[in-house]
Parts: sequence; C-alpha cells; structure tokens
Amino acid sequence: MSTQKAPVALTAAEIPPRPKKTIYPEGFAARVDGRIKTQLGDVFGLRNFGVNLTRLKPGGESALRHAHMKQDEFVYILEGEPVLITNAGEMKLKPGMCAGFRAATGDAHHLVNRGPIDVVYLEIGDRTPGEEVVYPDDDLLLTIGPDGNYRTSRKDGTPFT
Amino acid sequence: MSTQKAPVALTAAEIPPRPKKTIYPEGFAARVDGRIKTQLGDVFGLRNFGVNLTRLKPGGESALRHAHMKQDEFVYILEGEPVLITNAGEMKLKPGMCAGFRAATGDAHHLVNRGPIDVVYLEIGDRTPGEEVVYPDDDLLLTIGPDGNYRTSRKDGTPFT
Repeated sequence: MSTQKAPVALTAAEIPPRPKKTIYPEGFAARVDGRIKTQLGDVFGLRNFGVNLTRLKPGGESALRHAHMKQDEFVYILEGEPVLITNAGEMKLKPGMCAGFRAATGDAHHLVNRGPIDVVYLEIGDRTPGEEVVYPDDDLLLTIGPDGNYRTSRKDGTPFT
Repeated sequence: MSTQKAPVALTAAEIPPRPKKTIYPEGFAARVDGRIKTQLGDVFGLRNFGVNLTRLKPGGESALRHAHMKQDEFVYILEGEPVLITNAGEMKLKPGMCAGFRAATGDAHHLVNRGPIDVVYLEIGDRTPGEEVVYPDDDLLLTIGPDGNYRTSRKDGTPFT
C-alpha cells in the first residue's frame, strides 16, 4: 500500500515537465520538439481526465493536426498568441481565449506558435477507452488499447520499423 | 437535424454565464450567491467533461464543501487569492496555482474568497455516471440519475419540501 499522499495544491509552473517528449514515431517526433508538457492532473492522482500545462517555443506545434474519435479536448490560452488550425482554416488566439474539440466530429486541429514569444496553455482531455486518433495531413494512426497503452501505425495498419 | 455549428474559438470572458445560479435547495442556495459560472465546454458541444470559468465575488464560495464519489475535479486559479478548504485545513491559493480532487478519496473541498477582489478560476469535472456528492458539513446529499438530472435530499434521503 502506498503511503504517498497527493499534494493539496501546487504552483503549476513549478511542477516538473514530463520527461518523455512524444509518442510519435521517428520522422514525426521532431515536429513537436518545441513543446513542453507538464501533467497537472496526474500529480493529484486524477484518472478520468488529464490536464496539461503546455508550453510551445516559437516555431513549436501542439501536435500533428489530429481529430479524436472518442475523447473530447479543450484548450485555454494563458500566454502568447498561437494559431489554431482546423478544417475551417486558421485563427489567431490570444490569452483568455478557449476552444473545444468534440469527439467524432472529424474536424482536426492543432496549435502552431508563429509568434516571437512562448505560448502557454492548458489542455484537457478525457480518458474514454477505445480511443483512435486520426491525422488527416500525415500517414499516421494512433490507437489506445484496453491496457491504456498507445500504439502508432501507418494508416494501412503497418507498423513503423 | 441541427444546422447549428459550434464556434472554432471564443474569448472565455465574453461567453454569457449560465442563467441558473445553483441547484442547491432553499437554505443552501444563498451560500453561493457570489458565484458566477460560465460553461465553456458546453459552448463547444463537449459531453465527456465540463469546463467552467467561475468568478467568486468577495465573500463568495465555490460550493458547499463537498466530495465526489465517481467524478474527478480540477481547478486552476486565474485571478485573485481564494482559500482552499479541505479535510487537511486551509491553504491560500494564488494565480497559477492548481489543485486536483480525485474521486472517492472522501476529502471534501471548496474555495472561499476572503480577499478584496474577485477570484476567477477554471474548474473541470468529468461526467462519469452514477455520481453522488457528499457534504460533510451540511445535511445535504446530491445524486445524478441515469437521465443526467440532479436530485438533492437530506442525508437520510428525505426530500426538501
């Protein structure tokens, strides 16, 4: 039995970022080099959804442009002015702006930092099982197995070697 | 078929707050008079979790002190300095601080604004069914039925008249 107790409250910027940079395979991973994720929800032992404090250096991208099949996603901008790219086109966001991406709409999105300063935002996603993430602009498919582990493949299902 | 399309992104402070102030019965409702909730996630059609931008006027409380049985909860402070009250006692929070409340720990919490300026924070909660909310300091029990509707009663199950 663990005797470790979750903290009551923390300053988000003082929580260490997650060491693993990305689950993308080689060839895609470099696209999110400028991204630093801190898993705020996990620090408190939350299981039903994740909350990340994410920093994008100038030139950084939040993710490859993607759409979730089962899980909702939400972002709230704290600093900087990222460009949100969806099927509808581009839109510049500012601090205090937010966007939600409902599962299974097929509308793919990502944030890109084309500005001179870091972008910082909160991102929230639930953990509904059976998730599949589709990437309209890239030959990549991501599934999450019943064990919670991610699996990446090409769109035809063949693995990356 | 609805032709209404969800917006791509919005300024959170410009979204109208929810008109219904509280689901608490008479006698408890006045305790959250100083609270204004704006349902950010719902504007984008999200279903798996809710994200609220909540404002507490000086003297305002986030809720009666409560613990969730099934649903996780998370708060991130944007403005002001609320006091977080849990089973462990009191802790003053500042902008950039966050706290997570894992379901079924039995640790009840709420935020109280004892400062001279408004407190503004983001609160996130999932929508796991079968939820029950317990209030250690008050004779109140809240359950959420399979229809998603809330029901309040006294702790012995008798309804408020």
